[in-house]
Amino acid sequence: MSFQPVLIAGEWRSAKGSGSFRSANPATAELLPADFPISTWSDCAAALTAAEVAASALRSTTPEQIAGFLLRFAARLEARKAELVDAAHIETALPKMPRLAEVELPRTTNQLRQAAAAAQEGSWSLPTIDTKLNIRSMLVPIGPVALFGPNNFPFAYNGVAGGDFAAAIAAGNPVIAKAHPCHPQTTKLLAEEAFAAVGESGLPPATVQMIYHLAPEDGLKLVADPRLGSVGFTGSRAAGLKLKAAADGVGKPAFLEMSSLNPVIILPGALAERGVKIMEDLATSCLMASGQFCTSPGLTILFSGGGVDEFIAGFKARLESTPPTTLLAAGVARNLAVSIQALRQAGADLVTGGLPLPGNKFANTLLRVSGNTFLSAPQTLQTEAFGNASLLVVVRDADEAFQVLAHLEGNLTGSIYSDTRGSDDGLYEKLSPLLRSRVGRLLNDKMPTGVAVTAAMNHGGPFPATGHPGFTAVGIPAALRRFSTLQCFDNVRLHRLPAALQNKNPNGRMWRMIDGTWSQQDIQG
Amino acid sequence: MSFQPVLIAGEWRSAKGSGSFRSANPATAELLPADFPISTWSDCAAALTAAEVAASALRSTTPEQIAGFLLRFAARLEARKAELVDAAHIETALPKMPRLAEVELPRTTNQLRQAAAAAQEGSWSLPTIDTKLNIRSMLVPIGPVALFGPNNFPFAYNGVAGGDFAAAIAAGNPVIAKAHPCHPQTTKLLAEEAFAAVGESGLPPATVQMIYHLAPEDGLKLVADPRLGSVGFTGSRAAGLKLKAAADGVGKPAFLEMSSLNPVIILPGALAERGVKIMEDLATSCLMASGQFCTSPGLTILFSGGGVDEFIAGFKARLESTPPTTLLAAGVARNLAVSIQALRQAGADLVTGGLPLPGNKFANTLLRVSGNTFLSAPQTLQTEAFGNASLLVVVRDADEAFQVLAHLEGNLTGSIYSDTRGSDDGLYEKLSPLLRSRVGRLLNDKMPTGVAVTAAMNHGGPFPATGHPGFTAVGIPAALRRFSTLQCFDNVRLHRLPAALQNKNPNGRMWRMIDGTWSQQDIQG
Repeated sequence: MSFQPVLIAGEWRSAKGSGSFRSANPATAELLPADFPISTWSDCAAALTAAEVAASALRSTTPEQIAGFLLRFAARLEARKAELVDAAHIETALPKMPRLAEVELPRTTNQLRQAAAAAQEGSWSLPTIDTKLNIRSMLVPIGPVALFGPNNFPFAYNGVAGGDFAAAIAAGNPVIAKAHPCHPQTTKLLAEEAFAAVGESGLPPATVQMIYHLAPEDGLKLVADPRLGSVGFTGSRAAGLKLKAAADGVGKPAFLEMSSLNPVIILPGALAERGVKIMEDLATSCLMASGQFCTSPGLTILFSGGGVDEFIAGFKARLESTPPTTLLAAGVARNLAVSIQALRQAGADLVTGGLPLPGNKFANTLLRVSGNTFLSAPQTLQTEAFGNASLLVVVRDADEAFQVLAHLEGNLTGSIYSDTRGSDDGLYEKLSPLLRSRVGRLLNDKMPTGVAVTAAMNHGGPFPATGHPGFTAVGIPAALRRFSTLQCFDNVRLHRLPAALQNKNPNGRMWRMIDGTWSQQDIQG
Repeated sequence: MSFQPVLIAGEWRSAKGSGSFRSANPATAELLPADFPISTWSDCAAALTAAEVAASALRSTTPEQIAGFLLRFAARLEARKAELVDAAHIETALPKMPRLAEVELPRTTNQLRQAAAAAQEGSWSLPTIDTKLNIRSMLVPIGPVALFGPNNFPFAYNGVAGGDFAAAIAAGNPVIAKAHPCHPQTTKLLAEEAFAAVGESGLPPATVQMIYHLAPEDGLKLVADPRLGSVGFTGSRAAGLKLKAAADGVGKPAFLEMSSLNPVIILPGALAERGVKIMEDLATSCLMASGQFCTSPGLTILFSGGGVDEFIAGFKARLESTPPTTLLAAGVARNLAVSIQALRQAGADLVTGGLPLPGNKFANTLLRVSGNTFLSAPQTLQTEAFGNASLLVVVRDADEAFQVLAHLEGNLTGSIYSDTRGSDDGLYEKLSPLLRSRVGRLLNDKMPTGVAVTAAMNHGGPFPATGHPGFTAVGIPAALRRFSTLQCFDNVRLHRLPAALQNKNPNGRMWRMIDGTWSQQDIQG
């Protein structure tokens, strides 16, 4: 039996495997033909050793070479678009059009190109220079980064092509990517293009490495290994917390995006003013990709009275009239059923849906609970139901809403809809500080599912949404700073300094904090 | 029996204590007269509740008020200088002149004033604005910060007056300080001035709280409490790792400065060129404050041959001719003896010293070991001997030096001395990348004991020197960013934005990244 090769130490080679797996077509449950190896520790060790060498070699690579790699990789993905879209569609059931071809792949290449620009300009590293004392500091690459991508974005969050990958490489680090076992074939194609681009760009061969699967204990061992600089993970809370503990134990920064309900608060004035429009937007947001976004609105807070019954009836009708789509994997449907069961046992009432359907689909599901009941089991009623299910919490009044918010865990996002005439302003002022403190991104009058790849974005948030509230996974250049470490040069002879800290601005465009002022100028010396 | 009151919830009040303690004059071992309480969890809980209220109130405080507090506090410390210096001298045995009066207190007030300027300008928060999408983000206060100061800087690192305090307050957070049990009286005086300045500045009363002592388990419980935003700690590795584990377990960022040997490498050309001068600088640096600095050079790498025997003989003579001074506490002398014993058992030879002396002094101590022996027990031979003891590692050649560096743990600093004629350049190039990766601050031709409070300083480094290699404890504004969290405002109505993110630059001086460009301008809108 022949397994697909892994990408280690600059070559596609046979895995030292402990077994194999196949991905499945989620719609038919049919196993796809290729056999992918489950790597043993031997593969991890080889990758770590090669990554350490690559990390060292990358230090003498120019920003232009790194940017060149990212640009070539983006162009290669576009050239192989049809094949990539076919592979991702078969492995994830995500629609080819518009999702994979017109949204996710362009987003992925856009991220790579933004990262290239950031690498080339260099301002991300916050170069800081005190000329009088000749003390200079900047953020520098942290070392090899292990990336564990999620199931829900086969391109844009893939460990070998997505946002974490772009950030880690642009910051100057080699990457060891672990494929998500739901889409190994897609990951293989991405890794082929990445590796070809590495060769064309003259980067160290082990700048990009990729394995398909690992025993969980080897994943923890990988994270804790001293050869590794940092870790990026997007996935379930249970898996994320284990990786975090392994990294914490050895004092290693790990950046984990774990879970989020993305609460939406619809204030009474907004409901009265434009309830139907908000309901339609909420339904669209909840059903986007069958609710399989990190930012899918899983919990909506409504105030009883007013038009709330009509809102819920309309929402129910929208969910019932929209055909469910195939979920990413059989496991998603299974976990969704388990989560819905937990919510119901804790007191949530089923408004519609709740059942699995043929073809790995799940009936669009809506649950509701009173504020009072929510407060009786706030932990369980924050169970993440990843997929096309959402919970409404109908509160009695502002005080109850306040209590519900006070029990919220950390989330990536929180949205508040208020009316345009000012009648909700008092409520907004009462509730928004509490929501603000519990989310990484606060939205007004907007659903959370759009995550613009822009400098001011924060795709992060308080624990347990992520592992550290000071960093974002999306948004360039800030996302690069996760994979860096602060280095100071005190009285170091000028010719020995990194280019970014020398008197001459290396490219005339890099922003540097010189004696307290951000500047693109050279230092006269 | 009457205990000194603690500062909780805006008043000096009786502790809910489980016992009491006194500080001692380290020189005489005499207990000082005041009885200080050991607080129970009840005091911690009260402080946490009050801090949460203060954190919320601080959000509507202006930067000018926060800056005003820091400036008033600094002025008050200067006005009470004589009493503060007396208290600190009695409790720590540090000399009044120049150390306490002319160096440490001025550094402390300087830090407070720099923090005031940073708070007022606001650029530390990296405000980032994308005008087209109306997405805006910045770093904001993380919430109440618990500070655990060390024994070795009764003013400049004190939890209620030092660098962490200045940074946490300037970032907009209330502080709960735990005094170091070696200098409670000094801490009491500092807290009195801080609290008076809080009142004068109109800050929330619980912006500054202080307790003297805690059972270790209550310290861990405090760190893990959901009301607390973050933790700052400077002290021993054993205590720091326990606090880190408690914080990690609940996903809370903690900033810990734990231990550092601050390796110094003296290359052969530099030794030949100016060995005597370097030896004198090294001896001065090692003996500064009896070696009780976080940046004291505890490990020096020399190359055998050349003038190394003369260097060591001269160093030995310097140590023997310099009278030892009283250590900070009896415990320091005890631990020093234990560490020296561990180093000797692992193969280090005693060159001079090694014995405790009357008056809580310790003979200036020098040990040496060959590179080969070091490599036989690299872990034990990196035991921190906090105090006036230092280890020389004499390596055979460049390869052995490389091996020694490859076994180094993370450190705050690393220094390399090379000659000015270029004969050391090859060695520098071979060794410096390895040292660079293991330290937060790399120095050339300079001892590590000077830590300038300046924007480009990094007083941080790879684990286990600190808990996160991306942050610094000294250096404003960067030190403020430890105690912050990233918040994004997506489509939030303009009048609801924090002042720093509104179209108008709030003070005309704040640097903001607007559409990719650092600017002090308003946004035209």
